Amino acid sequence: RCSAGSSDDEDTFKILIATDIHLGYLEKDAVRGNDTFVTFDEIMKHAKENEVDFILLGGDLFHDNKPSRKAMHSCLEIMRKYCMGDKPILFDIISDQAVNFGSSRFPWVNYQDENLNISTPIFSVHGNHDDPTGADGLCALDLLSCAGLVNHFGRSRSVEKLEISPILLQKGSTKIALYGIGSIPDERLYRMFVNKQVTMLRPREDEESWFNMFVIHQNRSKHGATNYIPEQFLDDFLDLVIWGHEHECKITPARNEQQLFYVTQPGSSVVTSLSPGEAVKKHIGLLRVKGRKMNLQKIPLQTVRQFLIEDVTLANHTDLFSPEQPNVMQKVQAFCQQKVEEMLEEAERDRLGNPLMPEKPLIRLRVDYSGGFEPFTTMRFSQKFVDRVANPKDILHFTRHRESKDNVKEEAIDFDMLLSRPSSEVLQLRVEDLVKEYFQTAEKNMQLSLLTEQGMGKAVQEYVDKEERDAIEELINYQLEKTQRYLQERRVEASEEKIDEEIRRFRESKKNTAEEDEEVQEAISRAKAHRGRGDSVRDDADLSDELPDITMESDEDSAPAPSGRGRGRGARGRGGRGQSTTARGRARGTQAHTQSRKYLCKYWISLEIVLEPMQLKPFRCLNHHQ
Amino acid sequence: RCSAGSSDDEDTFKILIATDIHLGYLEKDAVRGNDTFVTFDEIMKHAKENEVDFILLGGDLFHDNKPSRKAMHSCLEIMRKYCMGDKPILFDIISDQAVNFGSSRFPWVNYQDENLNISTPIFSVHGNHDDPTGADGLCALDLLSCAGLVNHFGRSRSVEKLEISPILLQKGSTKIALYGIGSIPDERLYRMFVNKQVTMLRPREDEESWFNMFVIHQNRSKHGATNYIPEQFLDDFLDLVIWGHEHECKITPARNEQQLFYVTQPGSSVVTSLSPGEAVKKHIGLLRVKGRKMNLQKIPLQTVRQFLIEDVTLANHTDLFSPEQPNVMQKVQAFCQQKVEEMLEEAERDRLGNPLMPEKPLIRLRVDYSGGFEPFTTMRFSQKFVDRVANPKDILHFTRHRESKDNVKEEAIDFDMLLSRPSSEVLQLRVEDLVKEYFQTAEKNMQLSLLTEQGMGKAVQEYVDKEERDAIEELINYQLEKTQRYLQERRVEASEEKIDEEIRRFRESKKNTAEEDEEVQEAISRAKAHRGRGDSVRDDADLSDELPDITMESDEDSAPAPSGRGRGRGARGRGGRGQSTTARGRARGTQAHTQSRKYLCKYWISLEIVLEPMQLKPFRCLNHHQ
Repeated sequence: RCSAGSSDDEDTFKILIATDIHLGYLEKDAVRGNDTFVTFDEIMKHAKENEVDFILLGGDLFHDNKPSRKAMHSCLEIMRKYCMGDKPILFDIISDQAVNFGSSRFPWVNYQDENLNISTPIFSVHGNHDDPTGADGLCALDLLSCAGLVNHFGRSRSVEKLEISPILLQKGSTKIALYGIGSIPDERLYRMFVNKQVTMLRPREDEESWFNMFVIHQNRSKHGATNYIPEQFLDDFLDLVIWGHEHECKITPARNEQQLFYVTQPGSSVVTSLSPGEAVKKHIGLLRVKGRKMNLQKIPLQTVRQFLIEDVTLANHTDLFSPEQPNVMQKVQAFCQQKVEEMLEEAERDRLGNPLMPEKPLIRLRVDYSGGFEPFTTMRFSQKFVDRVANPKDILHFTRHRESKDNVKEEAIDFDMLLSRPSSEVLQLRVEDLVKEYFQTAEKNMQLSLLTEQGMGKAVQEYVDKEERDAIEELINYQLEKTQRYLQERRVEASEEKIDEEIRRFRESKKNTAEEDEEVQEAISRAKAHRGRGDSVRDDADLSDELPDITMESDEDSAPAPSGRGRGRGARGRGGRGQSTTARGRARGTQAHTQSRKYLCKYWISLEIVLEPMQLKPFRCLNHHQ
Repeated sequence: RCSAGSSDDEDTFKILIATDIHLGYLEKDAVRGNDTFVTFDEIMKHAKENEVDFILLGGDLFHDNKPSRKAMHSCLEIMRKYCMGDKPILFDIISDQAVNFGSSRFPWVNYQDENLNISTPIFSVHGNHDDPTGADGLCALDLLSCAGLVNHFGRSRSVEKLEISPILLQKGSTKIALYGIGSIPDERLYRMFVNKQVTMLRPREDEESWFNMFVIHQNRSKHGATNYIPEQFLDDFLDLVIWGHEHECKITPARNEQQLFYVTQPGSSVVTSLSPGEAVKKHIGLLRVKGRKMNLQKIPLQTVRQFLIEDVTLANHTDLFSPEQPNVMQKVQAFCQQKVEEMLEEAERDRLGNPLMPEKPLIRLRVDYSGGFEPFTTMRFSQKFVDRVANPKDILHFTRHRESKDNVKEEAIDFDMLLSRPSSEVLQLRVEDLVKEYFQTAEKNMQLSLLTEQGMGKAVQEYVDKEERDAIEELINYQLEKTQRYLQERRVEASEEKIDEEIRRFRESKKNTAEEDEEVQEAISRAKAHRGRGDSVRDDADLSDELPDITMESDEDSAPAPSGRGRGRGARGRGGRGQSTTARGRARGTQAHTQSRKYLCKYWISLEIVLEPMQLKPFRCLNHHQ
């Protein structure tokens, strides 16, 4: 089935396959700032030169959920340059486009819009980096689809249930059913699969005549029990699965012997972490499909910055130095320097005759210093390579036998160090650790917080990654309401101690559970809903009657006629939530309400200490109640 | 010359004129959130129905310099809906488009791009809200022009000199020379005019046959000596000036008797401040030009939310109440309530038969309480109108005889009040006051800061309005270098006292001067340059030799191998500036350097107190040196 001839004819689909282009990654870096744009241009050029029928992207076209103006501008420029022109399109779409592209304001494929002269259409699902967020429920791809440059598909409306109807493509006698799911949290998708809530619709007439392709952007390798999607979950009628999200290039189709389909993992086209997987040579794919036969041709990317990674274990070189020696540090440094020099030579050889390749490579030397050695400060070391390496400041990475991840947890977190890093990056690397750290060091009463570190970590992550300013607030308000309901159901009488205890129990009951995990998502979805409606959480909330209390509550010391506060509420959609909590807080609830508020504030104040260096701000609502 | 017939023929240009649409203004407000999008849709519909040749916009299409995804998406949607189609374009561009649209990646008019089927082209200059900022030097319009939906013109490269070459349009026998200047700081443009640095190029052959139009987006009414553009500055060969930026609709062309040209001021299509000018009925214009005759037809906008404003002076109603009465407050409130009821009735009458008009009007009652009366808290008052008025929270505005602007300065600023407002709004209103306030309350040693309140105010404004994260840092670094140069020139020997004194003198010497004003702009332009180059400020800065000092400086207590710091520097382009200051700081400079740094830090720390409630963060660089 994989032995298709690569001869091009009127029955052969030619499809360029790429994923995780991460436009805008490190765009402000003096050396690497343009890498993603240059490589995207190369990818599009390959598509044009190979006269493909269309381009298929597996998500994370953008690195940032809200791409910078520069990133969006460069993307528009490149797409307009390569996607438009007079080359005729030789395939048809025979499915209902209003269904396939239902989320777009122009729900039809761009090349059939008589106002746009498209030569090479792009089809794409969204990734976890550029997924829909916010009240508008839009994602970066929607701007491109609204501009007529991308056909965004695989967008799900429901969170419990997926019904995937394919885009049905026909070229000559070849028919492709193209399925896709834009990125959704792995746990949720996992659960949906387990609960048999994922259905792939198939064309009625002659099922067997279709070549079935599926684009997915999820964890493929196992991160935690339900934090990935096992290939076994996928329908076995599929012929080829195109797997995005994983950055290692494993583009050669691998056969899954149980499911009898092939999986291709193109990998990212830019190195976003200095890990071994990213050191694998980057490729995109030229996929040919004829009838039910396919052939995937690897195209090496020439503009990708070289990345070399090596490990050294100091303990294996006792002939050169031993921990006891007085000048061991110097010797170790010289040794590492020698290693890096060798890697640089290798990079240079490899670069010969590749004019498109950036000059400065990425170099990572992982130094295992266990066995009595000490890490040394890398300042001077970095200086030696500042003009020859693209990442002079983090060439060296010190590890010990126990895998580095543990170390991180062990070490106290050095905020000054964090301060000197570009916050967004730090956060993507470290938010979860930071929050964990915070919980470990927090005093007992902090532990009373309604949020577990898992929940808080997720919310902070969302806050930062997606610039979802309300994510944390939403989460806490949601938790607050939930706790109050819980307390009321359990008929807790209003004594501090009782409530302390109940809240502790409540929190323990769901610590690190999937439930809690869902809560974060839930809270964030609700955030969108609120802001969508822009007013109360509870539809039955009685404005005129409740607004005064809550307003007073947050007003004690403010001046008369706070003009614009109305907008404040409206704008941040808080009035509504405020009211609803006030409402819930009534009668037996009241004490519980102020009580749990109190914990949240305590919790919050101290959390500030953690968030401060990350330039996150506490949201205001709670501060009012301090 | 103004008596042109309004008959449409092959020699008559039909141009739709609008400005200051402010897409996205208050977009999160539950009631008013969609106003700008709805009205933009109406404007475009008028263009389509009147089959205009093109649409001419006077700037501030967007309210935010970095429009939200929703704002950009809505704009793309509306433009694609109305600008594209099969209607033929009946005019030509006979000027060099590469010059007219030089700033675009696709430097030709969109309707001549064979890949785009444009029916109604848009030509626009940028305003002060959506002007080019940041390292990329792009503005929101550039995204639209890159998407092929807008023809962005009037962009100046130099800051000392303007050479405006017109877009030359021809339809039948009618020829239009279209000049434009995108918004630039009034003071700068004023100076350029005074220094005869603004040249309007004119077509050589038969000069007299052209109808000369000029689009400008600046202050027209005088705000301070050089803070506007007098009409007299404009060339008298012009026939019609289209004036953007001013929100009051004065669209009927007014003849300037000295210059003998006409000025039309369409005004904004949305109410962005509750001031009398905005209460004037909103219109757009349908301009017809035939030969050198023109005719401008006013088109009233039907979707604009009503805005009624009235003034009452309590002292004029002593028959109803006197300050001495015990229950005067109640009486005054009842009186104001009655007034608002009357305004609501008027609004309702006016709305009859206007189904497109939003239901809830904007109401502003300005209450002059001088003469012993007191303002009252408006909470309850607002409640009475929450369902009938679009701005319940700020219906009432209390003033005293001395104009309100002074009051603001008098009153201490209430941060709690600010907290409860949408920060962006507050800031646009109050940043300057806040900073002034800060300087008034700051202790003596703060006064040593290198920045005057004027300078700081501007920088903070830029930081907030334009989300130019580096603006403040750039300004202070720039001032720092400047001071050091000053100190070195004056050969100050390195004693604290001397330097204190010199710095004080230096600062006084330029307090509130235009020079300082320029510095802010300068600093911000430099910011872009740096980040553009991404490395050193001084081209001759010697990296390898200087980086260590500065690095040590900010490193004392940080852990080994701070991976990512390199990027940190690169990303925020600070390494470079750091170096240059270190370099400047050498020899005699050194002491001065640390010294002035110290003031900056003192200054900064306390400035935090001001910025805190505005959710602004101090940039990190200086914190390192505290």
